[in-house]
Amino acid sequence: MEMCTSADKKLIDFMRSKFEVETSFNRVSSQAVKCGFGMQGVCCRLCTNGPCRITPQSPKGVCGATADTIVARNFLRSVAAGAACYLHILENTAKNLRALGQGKNGLTIKGPETLRELAEMFEIEETDPAQQAVKIAERVLEDLYLPREQQMTLVEKLAYRSRFQRWKELNILPGGAKSEVFDAIVKTSTNLSSDPVDMLLHALKLGIATGLYGLTLTNYLNDIMLGEPQITTAKVGFSVVDPDYINIMVTGHQHSLIGVLQDKIVTPEADALASKNGAKGFKIVGCTCVGQDMQQRGAHYRKAFAGHVGNNFTSEALLATGGIDLVVSDFNCTVPGIETICEQFQVAQICLDDVAKKSNADFIRFDSSEAADIAEKIMHAALESYTRRRGKVQVDIPDHGCDDAVTGLSKKSLKSFLGGNFKPLIDLIASGKIRGVAAVVGCSNLTAKGHDVFTVELTKELIKRDIIVLSAGCTSGGLENVGLTSPGAAELAGDNLKEVCRTLGIPPVLNFGPCLAIGRLETVAAELAQALDIDIPELPLVLSAPQWLEEQALADASFGLALGLPIHVAIPPFVTGSQLVSKVLTEDVEQLTGGKVIVEGEIVPAAEKLADIIEQKRKALLS
Amino acid sequence: MEMCTSADKKLIDFMRSKFEVETSFNRVSSQAVKCGFGMQGVCCRLCTNGPCRITPQSPKGVCGATADTIVARNFLRSVAAGAACYLHILENTAKNLRALGQGKNGLTIKGPETLRELAEMFEIEETDPAQQAVKIAERVLEDLYLPREQQMTLVEKLAYRSRFQRWKELNILPGGAKSEVFDAIVKTSTNLSSDPVDMLLHALKLGIATGLYGLTLTNYLNDIMLGEPQITTAKVGFSVVDPDYINIMVTGHQHSLIGVLQDKIVTPEADALASKNGAKGFKIVGCTCVGQDMQQRGAHYRKAFAGHVGNNFTSEALLATGGIDLVVSDFNCTVPGIETICEQFQVAQICLDDVAKKSNADFIRFDSSEAADIAEKIMHAALESYTRRRGKVQVDIPDHGCDDAVTGLSKKSLKSFLGGNFKPLIDLIASGKIRGVAAVVGCSNLTAKGHDVFTVELTKELIKRDIIVLSAGCTSGGLENVGLTSPGAAELAGDNLKEVCRTLGIPPVLNFGPCLAIGRLETVAAELAQALDIDIPELPLVLSAPQWLEEQALADASFGLALGLPIHVAIPPFVTGSQLVSKVLTEDVEQLTGGKVIVEGEIVPAAEKLADIIEQKRKALLS
Repeated sequence: MEMCTSADKKLIDFMRSKFEVETSFNRVSSQAVKCGFGMQGVCCRLCTNGPCRITPQSPKGVCGATADTIVARNFLRSVAAGAACYLHILENTAKNLRALGQGKNGLTIKGPETLRELAEMFEIEETDPAQQAVKIAERVLEDLYLPREQQMTLVEKLAYRSRFQRWKELNILPGGAKSEVFDAIVKTSTNLSSDPVDMLLHALKLGIATGLYGLTLTNYLNDIMLGEPQITTAKVGFSVVDPDYINIMVTGHQHSLIGVLQDKIVTPEADALASKNGAKGFKIVGCTCVGQDMQQRGAHYRKAFAGHVGNNFTSEALLATGGIDLVVSDFNCTVPGIETICEQFQVAQICLDDVAKKSNADFIRFDSSEAADIAEKIMHAALESYTRRRGKVQVDIPDHGCDDAVTGLSKKSLKSFLGGNFKPLIDLIASGKIRGVAAVVGCSNLTAKGHDVFTVELTKELIKRDIIVLSAGCTSGGLENVGLTSPGAAELAGDNLKEVCRTLGIPPVLNFGPCLAIGRLETVAAELAQALDIDIPELPLVLSAPQWLEEQALADASFGLALGLPIHVAIPPFVTGSQLVSKVLTEDVEQLTGGKVIVEGEIVPAAEKLADIIEQKRKALLS
Repeated sequence: MEMCTSADKKLIDFMRSKFEVETSFNRVSSQAVKCGFGMQGVCCRLCTNGPCRITPQSPKGVCGATADTIVARNFLRSVAAGAACYLHILENTAKNLRALGQGKNGLTIKGPETLRELAEMFEIEETDPAQQAVKIAERVLEDLYLPREQQMTLVEKLAYRSRFQRWKELNILPGGAKSEVFDAIVKTSTNLSSDPVDMLLHALKLGIATGLYGLTLTNYLNDIMLGEPQITTAKVGFSVVDPDYINIMVTGHQHSLIGVLQDKIVTPEADALASKNGAKGFKIVGCTCVGQDMQQRGAHYRKAFAGHVGNNFTSEALLATGGIDLVVSDFNCTVPGIETICEQFQVAQICLDDVAKKSNADFIRFDSSEAADIAEKIMHAALESYTRRRGKVQVDIPDHGCDDAVTGLSKKSLKSFLGGNFKPLIDLIASGKIRGVAAVVGCSNLTAKGHDVFTVELTKELIKRDIIVLSAGCTSGGLENVGLTSPGAAELAGDNLKEVCRTLGIPPVLNFGPCLAIGRLETVAAELAQALDIDIPELPLVLSAPQWLEEQALADASFGLALGLPIHVAIPPFVTGSQLVSKVLTEDVEQLTGGKVIVEGEIVPAAEKLADIIEQKRKALLS
């Protein structure tokens, strides 16, 4: 079968050896012919007079909708769906925190410092930690559930001051986040809004809600429940899978849903159970963002966590190793392709959230108050699957990945590493040892040069130019597996950055973890800006989501635009059929927020454009 | 220019005479080539590995999604968006009722009886009507804002008993309506749900939320604020436009947003203002559903309301008469096509809700507490437009429509007409004078044989078979304008129905008004079922949305399925690319709820199928 390429040669070699397994890599070629209307966003399927498609000969849909309207509508609907995904994660996370405070779910406070910080930030009067947890959760949920005409109360507390001011001036402070999503969906239905500019401004509001709530707050709440990230090294790649264990692969985004499970599987009772059945114990094998999140907090889970294997499009191959006994999925990015592979390799599947129900998986509705029971069920399902399938299914774990990926980055852990403040980093940037910062974030896709190819090569080009790279999301999985987050990668950096890395013992790519950690990057940016007393758009900081895949990424990007950052993408969103929308996103929005989208499908030119922006911003800053 | 046909010959003749005006009728031919993938629902544009399209050679998307997953995802997202539209209407309506109760918006209680009934149904203890209004509004809003895991409290009060029981057994009682929509959007994003059956069950939940809340409750709350429908006759069609008046065309669905306006424009002050400027006064000209709603309550607005002109695809022609000075739109179905015609005819446009912002319109955000100011602004904008444009723009009102359309139907007004209960109707059905009831509802489109062609011809075929037709939605506009809701239409009915109509002085088509009134039809059905002590699916009652257009119609249809009714459509939803989804909707769902979708694109066969079902149900009922 034909196969697309990957930056990860060992992964490709392994998949080539599994010729009986069909994966996304194979299906790229069968879907190679793309619909031009879809790619340009000028196809409308909202009503039975359609589908309509805009062409020079038919410049309007039957109803009269122009390309601008159709494109903006499709775009806003996608941003809204992406925002909804992140906000759904936050909602469940907040419910788990509330249940923790109420003593209902067996979780404990593993991040007391974050709890204190949030309690202070939210001006919560309770002093009892459990009560604080409840109050914090309730404040978050209340904001999410506000009607659209009431602005969310925590925005001002969470946002960098000068950004908040700008958003206020632009009248894009979001109302209740769920209602903002809801009304965006209404807006984009048949014969509702036809105003592209209004719809793009709505996307910025959703970006703010996504960033400050879906991302940042989710991290904070998880830090309380699951422990704060601590800088450490970790083993990554397929080699983390030890076939002597009963292996539970986790995939998704909602770490707190498996919070009890990860404690449960390392109890003496669990060990005994495993041992009785011929296994050394239970292990959680990380995949996609929930795996990244667990890796970041790995210092707290040395026994339970086998390690992180890779990103979304690595998960199919992971199952083809035969080493996984059970898949527990809680959200995307659980590609449907795993379903047939699970059948081939007799791997049981359990979904914990019906929004991410896989067609052939078992479903256990996660309910905070039943977390202990659910963990028990999952453990037994893993055991049952292990005893049923092992011996019948070939296990073939390739030698893959590395042992010294640096992980556990957060604003706090990085600051602590730097000696308590960001001055050393600022000094390095000011002196030119580090030219600037590029956040290479978002997803992995198979179309921008192949799996992780653009991400990895762009990153190499950036570090070669002495630009330090921060990663978050599926980019992290790819960068880790090829060794770019290991200290040895310093050798690939430019001379100045190489020296910095060697001196500090750090890699030139700092991995902040899951895509949720894009929120952590924002807090780093805000802190740098504050230390310099400037606004975020003035920082020599660029974003790239070179291989963005999905609707959540569009919501992230909308946050990036609201923050005022230049955002590079290798593949444009499906908006190119509207000159107006394209121009707003790539040019005009800069006048409003300072941010803009940069579309560049070639690697070196992309690196050059990003480096140029960094140099311009350096210059303005140092002048 | 080429032009599609219409059941309304005078309308077509008029539009042919306006060769300088391009309308949706003309654009049908330029969009005649349809995308087969889009029509079958097997196109996925969720991610940058796509767009993917399912073919025999590429049976899965890159991610592994099958046709079943892709189709179900597209379908659920559309149903969710349609549900969101109706729920948005209800939310604003409830806010207006709350503001009424708080004395904030100048609206008064025009339907004290409905207020009492709801207060009793909701077990509200307050006795002061204003307080009751506030409490009712709050109860509705609270339900809408519940999280998804909490079932809405009013469902049991609003639903027919045995239906509620069935829904409970099926586990499809909806949680908080806004959260159900929200999570459906999440579910249908990239690499989230791949389970078509779960997604279709979710659509049923959204159908229940749409029907009982978006439709039924909106009617009730509007009945309180705007007056209950009373059976009367009304003038309909273009002839209602009197060029001696300053004419404000209304279009949309949110009647309470213009509640203050319609009182305002008939004050002596308004008359004086008009008179000073050479006009006889101000008039509201109805278009689309908000026009239907005003017509239904026409007994309360004899002076303010000129009459109803027609449905969605009549609005462009209405503007081309030159007789309209201002368009006030509050929601869909405001087709974007009106924008250029408004420019051509120098008609000002004001949008009251940003979800329905037209690109070249002025926007006044409707806020209950500023309703009086907003009404004042609108009136002055109409005056200003009148003085600016009259004399410069040709006014050409065709002789069109009729004078004796029967309107003002509701469960209550019909029951009262029948002498206080539904026994006379049930006796007529039992005796076979009326074979059964067909609700011909929903939209108008231009593709099922042409504008209103299927609707009108199907209706004729049904009444010819002694089946009484009830209408709601844009079908009503079409049926009225060709005279089918006038008593004279009895001549087109079968001998038995003709006799009934002549005896009672009623037309064979009873118009319940806007699409929101589909909720009123449900209450009629429930009352008939209750009188017979049977469940709704046992009634000799069928639904047809022959020319359904849009996402809201899919939410309506999901309600119909949940009610257990057979639903005919001339054009299938975009699901035919999935055998599984098609089979569930057209067959399997009948085992669950009793309802099913019937796709029949030819008029006489459709009438025959519906008549057959009615005969089968009659037989079962009478045996």
